[in-house]
Amino acid sequence: MSRLLEGPFAVLMTPFMGEGIDEEAFVAQIAMANDTNISGYVTNGSTAEYIQLSLEQQMYISDLAARNKAPDKKLIVSACTGNLADTLRLCNHAGEIGADAVLVCPPYYFKYPSCEREKYFKQVADLSPVPVVLYSVPFFTQEIELDVAFRLFEHDNIIGIKDSSANMKRLMHMAQYTEGMDISIMTGTDDILVSALVGGCAGSLTAFAAIYPREISDLYAAVNKGNFYLAREIQYSLMPKLREADSMTFPRGYKKLMAEATCYPFKDKEVGE
Amino acid sequence: MSRLLEGPFAVLMTPFMGEGIDEEAFVAQIAMANDTNISGYVTNGSTAEYIQLSLEQQMYISDLAARNKAPDKKLIVSACTGNLADTLRLCNHAGEIGADAVLVCPPYYFKYPSCEREKYFKQVADLSPVPVVLYSVPFFTQEIELDVAFRLFEHDNIIGIKDSSANMKRLMHMAQYTEGMDISIMTGTDDILVSALVGGCAGSLTAFAAIYPREISDLYAAVNKGNFYLAREIQYSLMPKLREADSMTFPRGYKKLMAEATCYPFKDKEVGE
Amino acid sequence: MSRLLEGPFAVLMTPFMGEGIDEEAFVAQIAMANDTNISGYVTNGSTAEYIQLSLEQQMYISDLAARNKAPDKKLIVSACTGNLADTLRLCNHAGEIGADAVLVCPPYYFKYPSCEREKYFKQVADLSPVPVVLYSVPFFTQEIELDVAFRLFEHDNIIGIKDSSANMKRLMHMAQYTEGMDISIMTGTDDILVSALVGGCAGSLTAFAAIYPREISDLYAAVNKGNFYLAREIQYSLMPKLREADSMTFPRGYKKLMAEATCYPFKDKEVGE
Amino acid sequence: MSRLLEGPFAVLMTPFMGEGIDEEAFVAQIAMANDTNISGYVTNGSTAEYIQLSLEQQMYISDLAARNKAPDKKLIVSACTGNLADTLRLCNHAGEIGADAVLVCPPYYFKYPSCEREKYFKQVADLSPVPVVLYSVPFFTQEIELDVAFRLFEHDNIIGIKDSSANMKRLMHMAQYTEGMDISIMTGTDDILVSALVGGCAGSLTAFAAIYPREISDLYAAVNKGNFYLAREIQYSLMPKLREADSMTFPRGYKKLMAEATCYPFKDKEVGE
Repeated sequence: MSRLLEGPFAVLMTPFMGEGIDEEAFVAQIAMANDTNISGYVTNGSTAEYIQLSLEQQMYISDLAARNKAPDKKLIVSACTGNLADTLRLCNHAGEIGADAVLVCPPYYFKYPSCEREKYFKQVADLSPVPVVLYSVPFFTQEIELDVAFRLFEHDNIIGIKDSSANMKRLMHMAQYTEGMDISIMTGTDDILVSALVGGCAGSLTAFAAIYPREISDLYAAVNKGNFYLAREIQYSLMPKLREADSMTFPRGYKKLMAEATCYPFKDKEVGE
Repeated sequence: MSRLLEGPFAVLMTPFMGEGIDEEAFVAQIAMANDTNISGYVTNGSTAEYIQLSLEQQMYISDLAARNKAPDKKLIVSACTGNLADTLRLCNHAGEIGADAVLVCPPYYFKYPSCEREKYFKQVADLSPVPVVLYSVPFFTQEIELDVAFRLFEHDNIIGIKDSSANMKRLMHMAQYTEGMDISIMTGTDDILVSALVGGCAGSLTAFAAIYPREISDLYAAVNKGNFYLAREIQYSLMPKLREADSMTFPRGYKKLMAEATCYPFKDKEVGE
Repeated sequence: MSRLLEGPFAVLMTPFMGEGIDEEAFVAQIAMANDTNISGYVTNGSTAEYIQLSLEQQMYISDLAARNKAPDKKLIVSACTGNLADTLRLCNHAGEIGADAVLVCPPYYFKYPSCEREKYFKQVADLSPVPVVLYSVPFFTQEIELDVAFRLFEHDNIIGIKDSSANMKRLMHMAQYTEGMDISIMTGTDDILVSALVGGCAGSLTAFAAIYPREISDLYAAVNKGNFYLAREIQYSLMPKLREADSMTFPRGYKKLMAEATCYPFKDKEVGE
Repeated sequence: MSRLLEGPFAVLMTPFMGEGIDEEAFVAQIAMANDTNISGYVTNGSTAEYIQLSLEQQMYISDLAARNKAPDKKLIVSACTGNLADTLRLCNHAGEIGADAVLVCPPYYFKYPSCEREKYFKQVADLSPVPVVLYSVPFFTQEIELDVAFRLFEHDNIIGIKDSSANMKRLMHMAQYTEGMDISIMTGTDDILVSALVGGCAGSLTAFAAIYPREISDLYAAVNKGNFYLAREIQYSLMPKLREADSMTFPRGYKKLMAEATCYPFKDKEVGE
């Protein structure tokens, strides 16, 4: 078995500054991550409020990440848009900057039939110069059905899925179904790491791996030694912070904790600003 | 009372052709509309599959419509995007080409709190060089709550709302609440025109006004003469066609009928194409 | 054409009193209705909070209504339960007390497949001694799909549908489809009466026909004379009251207005009381 | 710590036979369970299709279970209804037959505000002669919010919650929050047992504990020895059977497997039968 993605990935946030980005703050979170055992980072995920960024801004941010990446870390670039052309534009840019994978959610706004979304993912996977991680995020767009995911896992250029549903039933079926395959089942939910890992998930793409990379690394280390009781203890220690983060409009609470962790403002941006 | 929008508006469709647009077919539907008593047209609405078009393509299409507009028709340009910057870009372009109004839906993907979406609309209305029509389309993004709409109707640069919910309770409350105001309550649902008009709606923005502009104009003429029984008869004559249109994935069925009406192919585009 | 149900029906409320019912208040609303031109009344509808009443209490209430019914009014009895046996028990009781129809919603709690719910309604219609009115109320249980309704309308013992969705598109398709059939399409939404009637609905089953039977009768009279502008005026006069009713947890606001109209307390009952 | 509920509980099914129950088949599943290390059983849960049973039938079934209970097993009786009076009737009967706990879901059909549902549970807990297990089952009725659950856990007569959402985030927050309290967090999802247990859940109330009590007991034994890899292996071995069960309308697939396990027909009942 040689899964391309394993362990915790930090979903980087976007520190806004006027019309643009606070570059120093953005790089600070990468530096903080580089200093730990996390596996890598993700740019322009949902927590990064990518939907409020133009394609150009998204590419600028990924460039920044690529330039500040540590050699032992992997870079996953989000390529989430409403249509094939824009998605492929981001995939091609990811290839140019040497990203290890792209993260692709189902097209949003319209409710496409399942078969059409499947075709969309196949087309992206056929044409993307870098490997594709599916991204199922039912709070924001249509969920990728299990049978669709199972068929897509056969594609050579699809290497895994990020599932942000917190639905452990989905994760467990995907983990069991892909046992022995070169497919990484990754959770997007910080609150369930120990459960996801004991169930056979390969890792995670989450915000707390950016804010608390050391604690998240420690949790993984405990799991890797088979010490699930220690892992649960670390998981439990994070739960009050997670409730705090969720008490504000997403992703404000996470950015507040990041500001505390990095001493940079990590300003969020209301959609009307 | 001097409502800026009244009567039936045709939501134009996007005839795809390879990577681009079938310009001839696009113009054909405008010509067909110009030949009737409809009030005007809308570019880049949901039926136009705008979510699959880049901002550049959307501006190109609106340019085409502006150049082929008849002097007695009004042009509404959709400015529906996921963030303020892109929306304003489309609003400004609408101003440059002399559009009569922009149509703005709530930002999608993220689920923003109500107050934040209200601020978004206020900001768009403050900054748009052309009057704003709110666009509530709950199938695709968050619905605009009645109390939010009522407050936004106070804004000088907001001239109405298009509501595509088919929820007559919403339409009736909006129509009654805005009685005597310079606000146009417009339905987006072809299936309920006679009911919406008797309830006090000012007009409609729909696909059948593009496909069957003559029949829709006749329905309005009957209503304007107070002949509601004739209006209902015309409405009823359209219902089987509407069921046919809805039997396919939106907006395929509507494009099929448009192809039959214009003799142009009006190719749709799957999201994976 | 000889539709069995036409005009406005008053959905009676349940005035709680300790563990039981305030019989005097219950009868007072019937007396108030008897004094007007409404078509009849409905016992144990959703507004009556039937879900909080045992089958015995429901039958006791329907008995009360039957005994106090004016000869020119029709009595519809709700037979809404979670299973066939209980529903038929209420249907049989409705037959014993001489009710004109039963109102039957889809079984709740479980999400049954469409075909199974269709079979349920057919079975109820086959076995009920009184004619059946389907009851589609998507806020509380699964909606009756249009194609299912269309097939059920062929049943000899199904005489109509009450649709409480406020979805005018559904109502219009049902009204057009059943034109010339002995089927009554009835709205359950006070806020859209004039729109529903112009669209071809036969009548309504609503709370305001119980609280304001005179105004609702006047609205119908205006429609029957083809005076849709007067009907709209009456409709508009009710809208602020409807917003007031909806500002409280359903059906509290309606009961508060009923208390004002009848001078009886019309106590509601929290589910934990 | 002395949690009253721990380990796997078998949710018993209802083998229909004409208008009644196949008593022999019902008892057979208890006998099968008695022969294993499972903690006990549950009567009239969702899988038992209780919504199709009258209160009398439900009490008859619980009587049967009480009479056939092995001394070392616990009996949980479902008291899920739409109103307080009926729920308390089932709670009182549970007390009469010596049940160890009642399982109570939020009232269904109406959508009650959160505070009212909280009051309902407090009232049930105040008045029930046997301890109460909350039952959150969002597929069928409103979910019990985390903050409501946390407050209800303070009640002396509330001993835990069954959560059937498969949402591991909810389970993990409840498990962490109640650490050290006499509260049992129980999952209702067979597909996630190993994940729920590593996260700190006390046990489960599921159908597979009735169908495959030996395998489920073995999974628990592995967890109790800290052998999570073996537990995962057993969990994985059940996943194809779970997909098979879910491929049919709930709970048909589970009953089919039960019929194979017991050699009794375990007839299901369509809602229209």
